[in-house]
Amino acid sequence: MSSQADSLQLAHLHRLEQDYAALLGRHGFDGVLLFSGRPARHHGDDQFASFAAFGHFVHWTGQAQLAHSWLLIRPGEAPTLFLHSPDDFWHLPARLPDEPWVARFRLEPRATEAPPALPPGRYAVVGDVTAAEAEALGAEANPPALLAGLDELRVRKSDYEVACLREANRRAMAGHLAAREAFLGGGAELDIQLAYLGAARQRESQLPYANIVGLNAHGGVLHYQHYDLAPPGRARSLLLDGGCRHRGYCADITRTWPGSDALPEFAPLIQGVTTLQQRLIDRLAPGVSYVALHERMHEELATLLVAHGLVDASPEAVLASGLTRAFCPHGLGHLLGVQVHDVAGRVASDGSPLPHPSDHPALRLTRTLEAGMVVTMEPGLYVIPMLLAPHRHRHEVNWALVERLADHGGIRIEDNVLVTGEGPVNLTPREP
Amino acid sequence: MSSQADSLQLAHLHRLEQDYAALLGRHGFDGVLLFSGRPARHHGDDQFASFAAFGHFVHWTGQAQLAHSWLLIRPGEAPTLFLHSPDDFWHLPARLPDEPWVARFRLEPRATEAPPALPPGRYAVVGDVTAAEAEALGAEANPPALLAGLDELRVRKSDYEVACLREANRRAMAGHLAAREAFLGGGAELDIQLAYLGAARQRESQLPYANIVGLNAHGGVLHYQHYDLAPPGRARSLLLDGGCRHRGYCADITRTWPGSDALPEFAPLIQGVTTLQQRLIDRLAPGVSYVALHERMHEELATLLVAHGLVDASPEAVLASGLTRAFCPHGLGHLLGVQVHDVAGRVASDGSPLPHPSDHPALRLTRTLEAGMVVTMEPGLYVIPMLLAPHRHRHEVNWALVERLADHGGIRIEDNVLVTGEGPVNLTPREP
Repeated sequence: MSSQADSLQLAHLHRLEQDYAALLGRHGFDGVLLFSGRPARHHGDDQFASFAAFGHFVHWTGQAQLAHSWLLIRPGEAPTLFLHSPDDFWHLPARLPDEPWVARFRLEPRATEAPPALPPGRYAVVGDVTAAEAEALGAEANPPALLAGLDELRVRKSDYEVACLREANRRAMAGHLAAREAFLGGGAELDIQLAYLGAARQRESQLPYANIVGLNAHGGVLHYQHYDLAPPGRARSLLLDGGCRHRGYCADITRTWPGSDALPEFAPLIQGVTTLQQRLIDRLAPGVSYVALHERMHEELATLLVAHGLVDASPEAVLASGLTRAFCPHGLGHLLGVQVHDVAGRVASDGSPLPHPSDHPALRLTRTLEAGMVVTMEPGLYVIPMLLAPHRHRHEVNWALVERLADHGGIRIEDNVLVTGEGPVNLTPREP
Repeated sequence: MSSQADSLQLAHLHRLEQDYAALLGRHGFDGVLLFSGRPARHHGDDQFASFAAFGHFVHWTGQAQLAHSWLLIRPGEAPTLFLHSPDDFWHLPARLPDEPWVARFRLEPRATEAPPALPPGRYAVVGDVTAAEAEALGAEANPPALLAGLDELRVRKSDYEVACLREANRRAMAGHLAAREAFLGGGAELDIQLAYLGAARQRESQLPYANIVGLNAHGGVLHYQHYDLAPPGRARSLLLDGGCRHRGYCADITRTWPGSDALPEFAPLIQGVTTLQQRLIDRLAPGVSYVALHERMHEELATLLVAHGLVDASPEAVLASGLTRAFCPHGLGHLLGVQVHDVAGRVASDGSPLPHPSDHPALRLTRTLEAGMVVTMEPGLYVIPMLLAPHRHRHEVNWALVERLADHGGIRIEDNVLVTGEGPVNLTPREP
């Protein structure tokens, strides 16, 4: 993306500076200090857990792994990055990327992990700071109204952010294709994950979330987090929910592939979910309620269940019975940005909480769509015995087919899409 | 290891039960509740950091990734494992291994993350508990004297623990050999790491520590923690410090390989460090001071520097000049167990702190060796400009050779060794 990305990044920073100045002025602050955070240490051990920097710090810098650093934003001044850079021989000095923000910011390398001194004035400090640190700074720690305002600044993506999300998607799709090869070659879940990482060029601890790599029935465990070391005897299916970060921005893509031992009914079902997803994507537009889209997914799922012979009833009756929620208990999607489940999905633009639809407790996005939002679109269809059990009395369900599909786990197809006034822009490349 | 491992595990548990009973009696407790711990959440995010369970919990169960679980030990009773096992469709139910402890323990699956109620009596709770949790339990949280006693129980390994450490070593060595292949095949640091993981059959987040994969000069950055995505133009060297867990127990092996573009002086230097390491290993015996062994490493390094033409002086003069500490600033090794830097390395057997040798601040093991200890033995030799700078005036140093070696980074050779009265037992398989 290089030179075009450079000018996009400068425009992104310019907009951030303006937005922060307006927000700080509105809340009566002379500035805000953003703390990147500190990795957690395992209890009773000297080893550290994996780390992701605080989203508002990443919003400015793209540095999702930079710990112990502080960014001071004051309207009218260049942002100052207090960069943790201990002068020792144990670690490589912090390496900043060759990007325009590095020249635009004032850099202050520091050996200490302590917060920097602030100029005179009224400041807020946001991030994972202790009460003692905030007191020593003389700053207000994480004022809720300011934080809500900062969250809201992340909801509508700049062109730069969209370019980063697109590049993260490109890398994630390379991972998906390599993972499919590893699956078709007989790999175990661990091997599929390692093939993914090799092609996406990212280590596990830098991914935006733990990839879900589910073979066969594991595809029906929504947050399946193991990677089995041996392949199953029969290759029914692979469900891979895999991400990637580029300059802090996250991809979140799911694909489901049939294995050589899949039932003949399985590939058409995958195609059905894919078509359904594309139809839902076509509806993305400013002013559309995401809750209504989620409900539309259930209507479409009802039609799909009937069309593929899983239920013998009218789509209306299927919907009314609650069966679609048993086959797909999760939400249609969420906001995407420097966090995989990006902030402010369940509040109005003034930060006030939105009413939550009681039928859809897992839905992470309940706002009306606006241009500039990037959302995931991820309808699914699973055989989850615990959820189907209460429906066992329904004779209209083709239980024999459900049983035969059970060891295929489930299907999810997920893309990342930008909402614009001129139609949706799918950031996820189509697989060849 | 299977059936032999089963009987070893039963003996290990029997010894643990006896040792815990004696310790609890000595401190006047009716029992102790061990908390496995909880993963940290990234700040302002809904995603979690990687997790390692509390060492004393792993000592009984081998479950290094089991969160939100509690183990109650009461003398004369079967240990009770309160196993976090939420009854939901999002996650796979907790899977316990096919090992004897599972049958020997009383299992209580629980949906909640809260601590279990305790029977009447005086109890301690150890691990990452909050003050509120300890108060609700009516238990003393992490009493220091008891904790020191628990640490001490981990210092001398049972035959079962040694078998686990040996198996972890076998897997780690498989990783090292695959990594060498990837290196010789022109792989980048990321590719070498992924090859390692594939052969060791372990994902990054389950490793006992973040593998150090340093090509060329990166081998001289002692805690180098990046994995570059592109290979360097010339292949001078690979330094790989890579671990693996088996049933919670850690391997910690380092190998250094010359690349196709290594100087002719480099491979003989690797061989020199290897021979030096083997001589040090031969000295491991009960009653030997590890500090003295560490000092012996410096004497041997002085001889090595002279023999390989890096310094033109007597070994005694080299040692007195402090040059060996500039070429090797880290300690000879540390205790190894369910943590890579295992507990109680710097205290006497009664828990009192040992005097620390001022010349060797980085040494993690300052005890007198005892049979049953497992230690790492990891001498090294590096070109670290920051440490060599104060010695630039020394004409006896062959600076031209040092400069030519600089982009080879460094050399470390590390094995894991059991101390016995009948001689050292190297748990690290020799590479073919």
